[in-house]
Amino acid sequence: MEDGIALKARTKEAKQAVIVGGGFIGLETAEELRQAGLSVTVLEALPRLLPFLPEDYSTRIQRELESHGVAVRLGATAAQVEVENGRATGVSLAGGETLPADLVLFSVGVRPSSRLAVECGLELGLRGGIVVDERQRTSDPAIYAAGDCVQMKNLITGEPCYFPLGTTANKQGRVAGENLAGSYSAFPGVLGSQVTKIFDLYAASTGLTPEQAEKAGFSPAVCSITKGDRASYYPGGGENHLTLVLDRGTGRLLGAQGLGTSTVAGRMNVLATAITAKMTVMDLNELDLVYSPSVAPVYDPILIAASQALKCVK
Amino acid sequence: MEDGIALKARTKEAKQAVIVGGGFIGLETAEELRQAGLSVTVLEALPRLLPFLPEDYSTRIQRELESHGVAVRLGATAAQVEVENGRATGVSLAGGETLPADLVLFSVGVRPSSRLAVECGLELGLRGGIVVDERQRTSDPAIYAAGDCVQMKNLITGEPCYFPLGTTANKQGRVAGENLAGSYSAFPGVLGSQVTKIFDLYAASTGLTPEQAEKAGFSPAVCSITKGDRASYYPGGGENHLTLVLDRGTGRLLGAQGLGTSTVAGRMNVLATAITAKMTVMDLNELDLVYSPSVAPVYDPILIAASQALKCVK
Repeated sequence: MEDGIALKARTKEAKQAVIVGGGFIGLETAEELRQAGLSVTVLEALPRLLPFLPEDYSTRIQRELESHGVAVRLGATAAQVEVENGRATGVSLAGGETLPADLVLFSVGVRPSSRLAVECGLELGLRGGIVVDERQRTSDPAIYAAGDCVQMKNLITGEPCYFPLGTTANKQGRVAGENLAGSYSAFPGVLGSQVTKIFDLYAASTGLTPEQAEKAGFSPAVCSITKGDRASYYPGGGENHLTLVLDRGTGRLLGAQGLGTSTVAGRMNVLATAITAKMTVMDLNELDLVYSPSVAPVYDPILIAASQALKCVK
Repeated sequence: MEDGIALKARTKEAKQAVIVGGGFIGLETAEELRQAGLSVTVLEALPRLLPFLPEDYSTRIQRELESHGVAVRLGATAAQVEVENGRATGVSLAGGETLPADLVLFSVGVRPSSRLAVECGLELGLRGGIVVDERQRTSDPAIYAAGDCVQMKNLITGEPCYFPLGTTANKQGRVAGENLAGSYSAFPGVLGSQVTKIFDLYAASTGLTPEQAEKAGFSPAVCSITKGDRASYYPGGGENHLTLVLDRGTGRLLGAQGLGTSTVAGRMNVLATAITAKMTVMDLNELDLVYSPSVAPVYDPILIAASQALKCVK
């Protein structure tokens, strides 16, 4: 919160921002700084943005940023922040080039803040996240932990994972609190459901990527569709791109990614619910979803995606 | 389609419309005629609009219509259309009063068009809808039927029901066609998921109303919440009212109704998916849904509704 307030104050005088890291925080801040009138460059070390999304989604997101005047530099690593009289003047890239900047933002990922846990001798897991059980209890039964500092359980694979997301942290806090207060409460795990807004484009995902599904022992198939988010003749609509990740043998839905208008959020939640219920794409194909020209085509994009995914089963 | 084209042509010269029947078709047409500049009165025989929704939703919908200049007359039955020189001049109400009208629309519900089926000696069911099995086969195994002319199966109760909706009709047509072409296909049944837009308000429902749940042998509890459809500090948001119908003994979700911004559609689809998967409100409360200030509060309205509904179980 303090960082946000400081950043907002700085935008009043800054002119050239360099954002190091093109994740959700980097891209959301890029939008805000651009709309506040700054020139903005995003540096991303990887060869594409948000690599847990399909490759063409990354391209579309980059195009959306660029069409709003945000410069995107892929495969670019910041080597040094240039400083004069205690203020940033630029960012030197690993390749030698220097970009002028009077505002530099680092948004290079989240690391569990588990130093206190280390000092207490608690067990740490993935990425240094504190190991907790379903009741948010650490390896010391008198100590509970919740939030971005803990390792979580993936609902699909049952394996440890690390998803530092606000909703998850909030729910875990309640579970820890209820248990500490003498009640019984359990946190079942996460799908990693998430959404972000990049100017007029919304990107969302839930469950496993094809790579994660493969690693978890599934035989994943991937199916992508593009469909209008309301009846084609109804004014004001836009596209929904949906990608389903399913197990080829059983048809079980394992993951989904979406890109398009704000309605991808609601559709991703339907898919998160279907994954939680262990639905197959056959089940998905039979869902009785609402229809009105103003909110969906007769066949909702979810049903179009499911009917296409059916062809990948077996 | 022909009716729609004729109606659109007539709106160019008409000034005063009376709509008989305040269902989805009546209200959607009221909006369009009003926006085309006509004065519009809706007559509804029942004491409130869309009575499958909670009572306060009906009141809000009526207020939305009236605030856009549509007159709503509840408990009002049309007795006669007044005609001069072959054109409508007014509608006389059962009470005696006559409303001037140069355009009269009847939208008093859908009746199965099953006369041909009667002539073929086919078995008829609820409301005269043609009885079909899961493959859309009628009582004559050589004859298939699909669409608004057939009786359907309610997915929750397994009992016959009648929901003349476009999505359902379309899906049944595919099932009938696949079976007729020698393949095997089954239509599982319906939840009656539906949504409509009334000016700036969206109303949606899925599954059972409390009355239907009671009749089906459940012990229903009803839980209503109101929550912003995005983070409270994020501009442009609106409210979502959600009502959950659950079985008091098991916590199983049986139905849901929603009213508010267009995002109620996506949320209703999550609830339809949960009902299909036989989820309880305990399951619902644990869903990992997407969060970003631009599309949801940290606790999505669905999760707020579920956490409230938990208190009704047992």
